[in-house]
Amino acid sequence: MINIVLYEPEIPQNTGNIMRTCVGTNVKLHLIEPLGFKIDDTKLRRSAVDYYDYINYETYKNWDEFIKKNKGDFYFLTRYGKKSYHHVKFNEANKDIYLVFGKESTGIDKKILANHLENCLRIPTTDKVRSLNLSNTVAIVLFEVLRQFDFNGLIDHEPDTLKGTDFLDQFKGE
Amino acid sequence: MINIVLYEPEIPQNTGNIMRTCVGTNVKLHLIEPLGFKIDDTKLRRSAVDYYDYINYETYKNWDEFIKKNKGDFYFLTRYGKKSYHHVKFNEANKDIYLVFGKESTGIDKKILANHLENCLRIPTTDKVRSLNLSNTVAIVLFEVLRQFDFNGLIDHEPDTLKGTDFLDQFKGE
Repeated sequence: MINIVLYEPEIPQNTGNIMRTCVGTNVKLHLIEPLGFKIDDTKLRRSAVDYYDYINYETYKNWDEFIKKNKGDFYFLTRYGKKSYHHVKFNEANKDIYLVFGKESTGIDKKILANHLENCLRIPTTDKVRSLNLSNTVAIVLFEVLRQFDFNGLIDHEPDTLKGTDFLDQFKGE
Repeated sequence: MINIVLYEPEIPQNTGNIMRTCVGTNVKLHLIEPLGFKIDDTKLRRSAVDYYDYINYETYKNWDEFIKKNKGDFYFLTRYGKKSYHHVKFNEANKDIYLVFGKESTGIDKKILANHLENCLRIPTTDKVRSLNLSNTVAIVLFEVLRQFDFNGLIDHEPDTLKGTDFLDQFKGE
């Protein structure tokens, strides 16, 4: 089972987008307080669009409470990571996977990172950016994990209207 | 060379986030009008953060102008795609790659899709969401392409302060 963990997220639109991604991938979301918004924040609901009611999530008072209640392989996404996320074989261990992402302003608490150096991962980028947008970072790493599992269990659904190639065929022209 | 193409994007925050991703990956951004915002929109600048001045982008009056000026392999991301993006070998052809993403409300014009059925790609999701957030979609597909090229040419940069493990070591403790 794959889990997304947001450490003290600050911006509701980002968490809303991440909720939408979690609903789209059957992934559980863990939110570690303090949060920079109320959980029923209007901006959060707007970014999560119509998916807010489907989201499987849990909140925790702090990191200690989270770590006591969850067991598995933890990976920490941070610009301080020495290893790129794409070099990890996420599908080798038969444990629950927790992908941990830090707050928008300062990331994950450095004391937590220092105790998990081997599992600190980064996303390759140019040196012109300090980081990518938080919800984009979650999407990139989550979909690499899902890819390694060949999107196991995810319905590659095809709406009824699209059966065959009929639907788009009607738009064919010059 | 990899290119991101936004077909009539509507929401400035999404394009801002995508600009940030493009600067972070040395990728050119193509914007096809009409846009749902002015190119110097405050929200756009805020989402692009400090990277706005680095962005390599071009705007076009419409799809026809874009397609006349650019040659290469075009891929169209759409919920109507029959094939998942992760089944494409992006690194096999030795041509420029253009990843085309539609507007937030209705996607890419169906006439365009109908003429490129073989290159219409989708992202596997559950049936609980209609789509993922636009900037997340761009990030997922772009980083799969980059991964296939082993992030060729992207600096997996390590800030000077992080040489060795010294930086995080100072935070080590219980």
